[in-house]
Amino acid sequence: MKITAKGVLPLGFYANGIACGIKRSGKPDLAMIYSELPSRAAGCFTCNTIEAAPVVLCRRRLSGTGYFRAIVANSGNANCFTGGRGLSDALKTAGFAAALLGVTPWEVLVASTGIIGKHLPMSCITGGLMRLVQGLSRTGLARAQKAILTTDTFTKAASAVFTCGSRKVTICGIAKGAGMIAPDMATMLCFIATDAAITRQALDKALKSAVAGSFNCITVDGCMSTNDSVLIMANAAAANPVIGGGMDYATFTQALKGVCLELAKMIVRDAEGATKFITITAHEARDAREARSAALAIANSSLFKCAMYGENPNFGRVVAAVGASGIPVKEKDFKVKLGPLNKRDITIGVWLGRGKSEATVYTSDLTPVYVKINAEYS
Amino acid sequence: MKITAKGVLPLGFYANGIACGIKRSGKPDLAMIYSELPSRAAGCFTCNTIEAAPVVLCRRRLSGTGYFRAIVANSGNANCFTGGRGLSDALKTAGFAAALLGVTPWEVLVASTGIIGKHLPMSCITGGLMRLVQGLSRTGLARAQKAILTTDTFTKAASAVFTCGSRKVTICGIAKGAGMIAPDMATMLCFIATDAAITRQALDKALKSAVAGSFNCITVDGCMSTNDSVLIMANAAAANPVIGGGMDYATFTQALKGVCLELAKMIVRDAEGATKFITITAHEARDAREARSAALAIANSSLFKCAMYGENPNFGRVVAAVGASGIPVKEKDFKVKLGPLNKRDITIGVWLGRGKSEATVYTSDLTPVYVKINAEYS
Repeated sequence: MKITAKGVLPLGFYANGIACGIKRSGKPDLAMIYSELPSRAAGCFTCNTIEAAPVVLCRRRLSGTGYFRAIVANSGNANCFTGGRGLSDALKTAGFAAALLGVTPWEVLVASTGIIGKHLPMSCITGGLMRLVQGLSRTGLARAQKAILTTDTFTKAASAVFTCGSRKVTICGIAKGAGMIAPDMATMLCFIATDAAITRQALDKALKSAVAGSFNCITVDGCMSTNDSVLIMANAAAANPVIGGGMDYATFTQALKGVCLELAKMIVRDAEGATKFITITAHEARDAREARSAALAIANSSLFKCAMYGENPNFGRVVAAVGASGIPVKEKDFKVKLGPLNKRDITIGVWLGRGKSEATVYTSDLTPVYVKINAEYS
Repeated sequence: MKITAKGVLPLGFYANGIACGIKRSGKPDLAMIYSELPSRAAGCFTCNTIEAAPVVLCRRRLSGTGYFRAIVANSGNANCFTGGRGLSDALKTAGFAAALLGVTPWEVLVASTGIIGKHLPMSCITGGLMRLVQGLSRTGLARAQKAILTTDTFTKAASAVFTCGSRKVTICGIAKGAGMIAPDMATMLCFIATDAAITRQALDKALKSAVAGSFNCITVDGCMSTNDSVLIMANAAAANPVIGGGMDYATFTQALKGVCLELAKMIVRDAEGATKFITITAHEARDAREARSAALAIANSSLFKCAMYGENPNFGRVVAAVGASGIPVKEKDFKVKLGPLNKRDITIGVWLGRGKSEATVYTSDLTPVYVKINAEYS
């Protein structure tokens, strides 16, 4: 199975992205992915107890058994901490898009990313939606990719193609994210389209598994956003035998995980101000949870991240970070291996001497540019 | 009771600090506080599961019922992750100091701060100890203060004087710390001397209480060190009625907490690269633990700290940080109040709407200078 770092819209999907005036810079800020066929859908969301209005809306709609037709996403405003009016704005966005598409309002999902605590400028959105819908096309994915970015410096897409019952199936995801990235998702949005025929239960399970092995293994600054959403739509246009389990399910999940991991790594590569892409693997942990805790403790240590920026082989900071996580490692059993630091890609291994489990996480360094970006962002 | 920001050695104590060659810069790096009378002692230490050799030594010695005469501390080398040789070096340091002072080896406590994973240069220490002991004096505390610093930009001392049974009692503490500062202590050392007569149990309890309300309420970067130690010696030279409980205990503990809080705040003011001193209070929490969690979640958010550096009233980051901590706050009950940001001292309040408990923590902003200091430190 091949994962490619580009966007290939699966059969039956259309996309577009435009500038509707939410961003003062005039950059694109409104995107849509539309399926001409009814789609099964699933979502994974932030664990932040403060949830943005679009997250509330998507959770509700995805808890039902219905089909879906479109995702509308805006950047420049998170529609979070905006109370009852925020939820009403999210509903209006979905409803207005549905009317233009000729579908029912509950067939539309929404997502937002940007500043927290300000109301969505609804006139921009309602004014832009007509143009957004009119411009939907099979070649519009690149425009959608641009319209969901905030502090990102490049667009992010990945695709997988595989065979299921002699039919070609495509999975394609686009994502945004560059800061406020922590495990259990972050200020990241990811929209995935597939033409696979798959049951709702299998789609849900495959997405959870793929997210656990990708977006939940990256951290930029340990800060968890209120808006994180990964949404997938499956419209069955590939006409493959419906995936419900067995080998086909395994293949689908592997392809989906491949797409998600490719996108997750792109987010780390685009981390605000980052100069390094760091892969940290914890070995010899008692169980998978402990391995992940150890790797994340290192990845989230500001001191470690500064040392990486300085190409400073200060392995004491790795030791201190693991110890601070509370894992009862013994000094004599604990080993650290730092790869060469004078490269863009750095590999770190730690051996805890407590068992046989391991886990890998991905992170970036902490740089003066990260601080400047986040001192000025509002 | 008055807490002053200066060092006043209690009766019967002597101090000194010298440069013995551990630091390549030639700055002072070896300090001693000595009591001519046998002292009760107590300690609080890092919760990091990787403990530096001097922490192991102090824990063992303080678990006994003995008296103590001196603390020897070095900066420039943490003597951590140094295996059996590290512990042997700590024992040798104490033993050599004891021989020069004419006391038994187990009457000496040791502490180290600096780089992790390198062996102590013992020739510097044994070569310097003679001079250190010969120079002990009633006016040597300022020299001791200097010799325990690492990236600190100023020395830190605080004192309290109060009356106990018509006798004047003095408590005096000195501290170092500027980075790798997290609750549950950090790369900070604090040595406290008092001429109070107090039982071992009361001293231990008073120190734990004082540390909980001071050093464990500060965070600079959320990074917990392997060497944190707060040590107190009480030599009874004030000849007050022995403190074991009641009003005298309450007075002593209040004074001790005052000294510790003053030192803790100095550490935050001296935080690496900091331009702001930030006081964060969480109100209306269900219990004290929840209040502290909420306040610390904000204080440890890199995004929040960058916003403070930029004097950027991005209250969304406060909201996101509290939500990410997992406290089930409801958006409608949650309030944030940011004080004016264009000053050195900033006050932040959050109201969780869940109960009546509150907690205050102290932190600094995150600046490009912090990153530079920690990229280069080794």
